[in-house]
Amino acid sequence: MKIFFNELHSTHSARQEIYRGKMVPAFETPARQSAIEQALKARGLGELLTPMQCDDALLTRVHDRDYLNFLEGAWAEWIALDPANADTEAFPAVWPIRTLRTDIVPDNFCAKLGRYSMDSGSPLTSGTWRAARRGADCAAAAARVVHAGEPIAVALARPPGHHAGADFFGGYCFINHAAVAAQQLRDLGAAHVTILDVDYHHGNGTQAIFYERDDVTFISIHGDPRTEYPFYLGHADEQGAGAGEGFNLNLPLKHGSGPDVWFEALDRACDAIRASGCDALVVSLGLDTFADDPVSSSAGFAGFGLRAPEFAQMGRVLAALNIPTVVVFEGGYASEALGDNFVEVLRAWQVEGGLTA
Amino acid sequence: MKIFFNELHSTHSARQEIYRGKMVPAFETPARQSAIEQALKARGLGELLTPMQCDDALLTRVHDRDYLNFLEGAWAEWIALDPANADTEAFPAVWPIRTLRTDIVPDNFCAKLGRYSMDSGSPLTSGTWRAARRGADCAAAAARVVHAGEPIAVALARPPGHHAGADFFGGYCFINHAAVAAQQLRDLGAAHVTILDVDYHHGNGTQAIFYERDDVTFISIHGDPRTEYPFYLGHADEQGAGAGEGFNLNLPLKHGSGPDVWFEALDRACDAIRASGCDALVVSLGLDTFADDPVSSSAGFAGFGLRAPEFAQMGRVLAALNIPTVVVFEGGYASEALGDNFVEVLRAWQVEGGLTA
Repeated sequence: MKIFFNELHSTHSARQEIYRGKMVPAFETPARQSAIEQALKARGLGELLTPMQCDDALLTRVHDRDYLNFLEGAWAEWIALDPANADTEAFPAVWPIRTLRTDIVPDNFCAKLGRYSMDSGSPLTSGTWRAARRGADCAAAAARVVHAGEPIAVALARPPGHHAGADFFGGYCFINHAAVAAQQLRDLGAAHVTILDVDYHHGNGTQAIFYERDDVTFISIHGDPRTEYPFYLGHADEQGAGAGEGFNLNLPLKHGSGPDVWFEALDRACDAIRASGCDALVVSLGLDTFADDPVSSSAGFAGFGLRAPEFAQMGRVLAALNIPTVVVFEGGYASEALGDNFVEVLRAWQVEGGLTA
Repeated sequence: MKIFFNELHSTHSARQEIYRGKMVPAFETPARQSAIEQALKARGLGELLTPMQCDDALLTRVHDRDYLNFLEGAWAEWIALDPANADTEAFPAVWPIRTLRTDIVPDNFCAKLGRYSMDSGSPLTSGTWRAARRGADCAAAAARVVHAGEPIAVALARPPGHHAGADFFGGYCFINHAAVAAQQLRDLGAAHVTILDVDYHHGNGTQAIFYERDDVTFISIHGDPRTEYPFYLGHADEQGAGAGEGFNLNLPLKHGSGPDVWFEALDRACDAIRASGCDALVVSLGLDTFADDPVSSSAGFAGFGLRAPEFAQMGRVLAALNIPTVVVFEGGYASEALGDNFVEVLRAWQVEGGLTA
């Protein structure tokens, strides 16, 4: 199993984030990916590879060029304002909601950050662009080897990507790696690609990027946005628009739903994946469905209560689809358990699929 | 000169705010209004009055009912989540920008705050609703006495209001007091009302509330939104829409513009006020055009470099319009100078207008 890992991921390392109006230590840390790399090595699973660089042209098929340009230059712009900014993280402060304009990009740096973001909890750091851009390389490389015949390949592409829209970051996400993988598969000739997002949080960015397209189906199982991030997208009535009508399926589950409910939703999702007739599958694999995840925890219940046996079961169910698959790492914040949970999914997949290591 | 002051303003008192991604001591403090009250008393200007309560029906002519309902109940909701919240301020964290939905209001409190706001710098406190609602009483009362024949009346209505839109707060503003005053004047029979906003920051909320109406003209002189808050509105090409086309005039000035440039813009604004043929004028009087204002300060220059003599000149120019006027207190954050600057405007107006105290 080829696992393309982002060797630059730790260049994106925030010390703190604004979480519900308080400055707190960052949840989205380099330790997350390191834990997975260590577990893969310790348990002898997969082949850790660094990817070739993918073309910018691939990125601009899912992101706006001006957004990418902004992200690429943002840190230099921030430092140019004040050299002391080198020791900080940059946060937006104002957002162009309804009645406000987005057609004129302000000169003010903080306002540009707001123009291109959706929340106050996604710090921009010195290495954000390099890390997120390199994550896209991982996603594209995994898509290429799957196109070339591998039954499964993995993009270990921290920071996550599924909340990033065509022209905004948010939810710790900057470049939408799952969208990059799906687009790469399409560009290589897959007639239809389906994305299954099993992160605890709805993949609003991925949905929005493909919402009016009929060549990529988006399916998501996630905490009900009435109570869970990202709050403003992920409802069951969102079924696509225009040409994309019928190509979007949301399965929101109430916070506190346990594994039984979750696996019922997974069955529905698998039916929809089969019905989509896709040539290839992209799985946005977030592990914040875990029973001890700190970010999805509230009122004494975290994620969908999944633990190692359920992550293995997830791997078996997905392998049984028998569709060439790119797995993209998304959320999951219980670093100490993240590695084992990630390996559980992949090892079960490998065994079920009769794959070699 | 009747001055309706908000005797409940200090119930809205935030200790801190998020300013460009850092938690800092709040700029928008009760000391601001207290300084003005003291200066008025010390210099023997005006008659400080508390207002009658205005009808909710007036508020719903400029704000959405669901927004007002949310604001009224917000603090109780916040405390109900956790009694320890009583000692905090509440901040939103995620905003429904493009691609995200506003038609379903989330149950999550933090997400509701985001649904109804535009920035991370406007803390909600225990007294926010009471203070902002009482500010509307001041604005309505001032409008009523002007309608009844007073040449000028003042709403000393902290917190400020001009950034608040029909259904969102932001920029320290929760209820748009200038909009309430204009609507009250219209409801009492003024055929046309013009609002002049001289705060350093563009009054995006006021503009948006009246943008498609032809019965209220909005005119603003402010720092160019390319570099100054609120960043996403206030450009010269915004001239109104639909029935409101031609009833909106923005005069953005580059940061660093001094008094000469500002008074030229004021002349243009006065021409437009006269041309509007209004029966009554509402002045959104922010004093952050002051040469030592901390919030409008950057790169060694604050506001439009105005000082006491210029504030007096502003009063003389406005008085010379000889139009019945409601003055509404907006921004201005140099508390120690705020009282004197405010008095300078009003005293010059009084002298120029030949008014009694």
